[in-house]
Amino acid sequence: MSGAQRLSVNQGVLPLIAMMKTRPAELRLAIATGAAGETLIDAGASVPGSLEAGRLITEICLGGLGTVSIQAASHLPRWPFSLTVRSSQPVVACLGSQYAGWKLTNGDGEDSYFSMGSGPARALAGKEELFKDIVYADRGDVATLVLEAASPPPEKLVRQIAADCDVAPENLVVIFAPTQSLAGSVQIVGRVLEVALHKAHALKFDLSRIVEGMGGAPLSPPHPDLVTAMGRTNDAVIYGGRILLHVTGPAADARSLAEQLPSSTSKDYGTPFAEIFRRSEGDFYKIDPMLFSPAEVAIVALDTGETFRGGAVDPKRVDASLD
Amino acid sequence: MSGAQRLSVNQGVLPLIAMMKTRPAELRLAIATGAAGETLIDAGASVPGSLEAGRLITEICLGGLGTVSIQAASHLPRWPFSLTVRSSQPVVACLGSQYAGWKLTNGDGEDSYFSMGSGPARALAGKEELFKDIVYADRGDVATLVLEAASPPPEKLVRQIAADCDVAPENLVVIFAPTQSLAGSVQIVGRVLEVALHKAHALKFDLSRIVEGMGGAPLSPPHPDLVTAMGRTNDAVIYGGRILLHVTGPAADARSLAEQLPSSTSKDYGTPFAEIFRRSEGDFYKIDPMLFSPAEVAIVALDTGETFRGGAVDPKRVDASLD
Amino acid sequence: MSGAQRLSVNQGVLPLIAMMKTRPAELRLAIATGAAGETLIDAGASVPGSLEAGRLITEICLGGLGTVSIQAASHLPRWPFSLTVRSSQPVVACLGSQYAGWKLTNGDGEDSYFSMGSGPARALAGKEELFKDIVYADRGDVATLVLEAASPPPEKLVRQIAADCDVAPENLVVIFAPTQSLAGSVQIVGRVLEVALHKAHALKFDLSRIVEGMGGAPLSPPHPDLVTAMGRTNDAVIYGGRILLHVTGPAADARSLAEQLPSSTSKDYGTPFAEIFRRSEGDFYKIDPMLFSPAEVAIVALDTGETFRGGAVDPKRVDASLD
Repeated sequence: MSGAQRLSVNQGVLPLIAMMKTRPAELRLAIATGAAGETLIDAGASVPGSLEAGRLITEICLGGLGTVSIQAASHLPRWPFSLTVRSSQPVVACLGSQYAGWKLTNGDGEDSYFSMGSGPARALAGKEELFKDIVYADRGDVATLVLEAASPPPEKLVRQIAADCDVAPENLVVIFAPTQSLAGSVQIVGRVLEVALHKAHALKFDLSRIVEGMGGAPLSPPHPDLVTAMGRTNDAVIYGGRILLHVTGPAADARSLAEQLPSSTSKDYGTPFAEIFRRSEGDFYKIDPMLFSPAEVAIVALDTGETFRGGAVDPKRVDASLD
Repeated sequence: MSGAQRLSVNQGVLPLIAMMKTRPAELRLAIATGAAGETLIDAGASVPGSLEAGRLITEICLGGLGTVSIQAASHLPRWPFSLTVRSSQPVVACLGSQYAGWKLTNGDGEDSYFSMGSGPARALAGKEELFKDIVYADRGDVATLVLEAASPPPEKLVRQIAADCDVAPENLVVIFAPTQSLAGSVQIVGRVLEVALHKAHALKFDLSRIVEGMGGAPLSPPHPDLVTAMGRTNDAVIYGGRILLHVTGPAADARSLAEQLPSSTSKDYGTPFAEIFRRSEGDFYKIDPMLFSPAEVAIVALDTGETFRGGAVDPKRVDASLD
Repeated sequence: MSGAQRLSVNQGVLPLIAMMKTRPAELRLAIATGAAGETLIDAGASVPGSLEAGRLITEICLGGLGTVSIQAASHLPRWPFSLTVRSSQPVVACLGSQYAGWKLTNGDGEDSYFSMGSGPARALAGKEELFKDIVYADRGDVATLVLEAASPPPEKLVRQIAADCDVAPENLVVIFAPTQSLAGSVQIVGRVLEVALHKAHALKFDLSRIVEGMGGAPLSPPHPDLVTAMGRTNDAVIYGGRILLHVTGPAADARSLAEQLPSSTSKDYGTPFAEIFRRSEGDFYKIDPMLFSPAEVAIVALDTGETFRGGAVDPKRVDASLD
């Protein structure tokens, strides 16, 4: 394959980064150069940020291999505005880039920093087991990292991230926005397709068979409380999200995926996410990983042309959480 | 703030103007140079114009700070195609640019010209009281004015407009389309968000607290009669429009805004707009200003995360007007 | 009219072709140079292709004079993702370019090649009677042809096509994707507006009166069997498609068009398309041409402002075919 044909999630986001850099006032961003020379884009911590910044960040999370739109179009009467996420490269876009799987830590105690890294930089660092299964790695000299966080990483961690990506710190862009922000509310709900891909992987579905993906979920109103904000964005997906995948391979596998993929298969299904989180004493690892998935799924088995369905959007639970 | 960060609605529309200039045949526009050297874009008077021209004009009205899409997506069964308007800078986009608030008059009697100016040029001229409240002014050497009118302004008025904007007439673009035209039908319904902002202002809601805005309304079929066309485009908003705002400040204020904002709070609510207009003997100032607002509103209070709702879309009244 | 103002469907698609050429891996395309020097873009024969390639191909079919979007927005509960097609130049876009009306044949027996040519190149060759009625011809030195086919045309036919278009073979782009492919599923359903235009022509409606067009239909799941795939894509339009046209001229003609245009006026209406096709022994000419049309239509008579409606989407028949 020629260079032009290789998928590069870090190259793919450069036009989107350029858009953010030319419209900071409109998008309510603060763009600065960090201590290590990295570009810091604050999309919701010291500045309010915006829904449009969140939409762009979601497309950046997808490595430029997908589109995110906000439309007046919804299956939920009280939530008429919704997100649509679509990618013809869902595995690379969602798991190779968007999934927040890179554990970033620095220091201990009061000065410690912790965040789960998302976005194209992950595919340069390749620190996660997941990359073996998706058979994807990016290469190049620019990197973009997205953090659901209220502050940027400290200099030492930035230098480590750049080193892990094998790029100069000057060529690293770090975008961050807290869960509670406008941009955060979009970029988390924009994971409606990614959680489906990640759960398919957890269910041992062969990822090389997933050809197309799209999804939709209601725009979730931000909340100033971290746990409530986290609860809402997750509930928008768990109780209000829908996805469609096109897969190859035996129809029986597609049928089985459709049965197992919806959030309703989780033992924690039915409870607002914030309550589950509190019950787990804030430990994500105590939450059933099968919960992180869309409410409603449709799987097209390309080999037989059949569509298999599972789960259902639950308007009442969406209202209970978002209202 | 650096120059790059300043919002300029007149700079923001230049790519949109360029799109119109390169596609006049497709958009059915007549583009000419006026007597004072200004660029005249006729989008529906001597030429038929188009819905796509109307969509572009609406984005121009928003000063390039918002998006307008036409989709097969509606909450109204008989009107499946609708507009979605969205801006992360709704106050500047809608009140600083889109609102038709600049009174333009020239001469008397038969030769007189009257139109309410809309679009980015308003923010250069700053002739209206409103600009004090929104704390926004543009500066620069290019200006774009949009007129809901069947003819371009006379030379003397053009020179006055250019002088008020402090630009050379050669750097002024005037776009005009009558109410009855295809482009007119889009650009007026495209005010679904703007009327909400304007009414919020009339209700003394602090505009600096309005952070995000989006809205939707059915695509209204044009009508050859001026008053009927005006009636339909207004009814599409008044009885068929929905908006969502994200605001800061006390939740009680957001709740109160949600209660007062819908068109149903007007004493004139319930009657087709054309009938109200005729009853007022064509005098807009006799019409209750509280009528100009969307049917249904949702206000997210960012400080508490609550969503407040008011009003409801009225499919029967939409049908009565548009059919 | 100046050169810039002339509509050129072959010039109009150049940015779309460029997009395909820069994203072959993402779109899963195989791009090669054919024996005559032509550019061959395989979007679903030797490679899987993608829905996004199908969306781009549909915009190419429209000669760059329209937009195609895939959204979570549907009037059909089991098929939440749908296509919206829109053009402000529907006659040139759909009949002058998109309609698959150019009969391309080469050789006999086993080595024979047959395909119906679609896309901008048709407007250069002007081989069809239809071009007399739509009063449109393109000119220029680049040509793009789209084929619903599993293989590219043989060299001799390519040279003939180039000669008919009066372009050098090196300046001819041939895009092909089979009916059963992901791209095929999009580009055929993307004909929801075109079939309405073509039927309007068959009904002798004066095409010069059709000013605007838009349409929507459910995204149809691909099927590996040719006849079933053909059946589904056609049924998505015939039983699940909706269109809206804006026309000039007498309201009585618009009313009559709304009555005659829906698929329900066909004697074959009600039966799955694949069954009709098999019953006709694979001979398209035995199928009632009145069947090829959207389920539901709305016609706006611009001269009177009336909207006339006909037909209705039939969710049960859509489910019967697509599921």
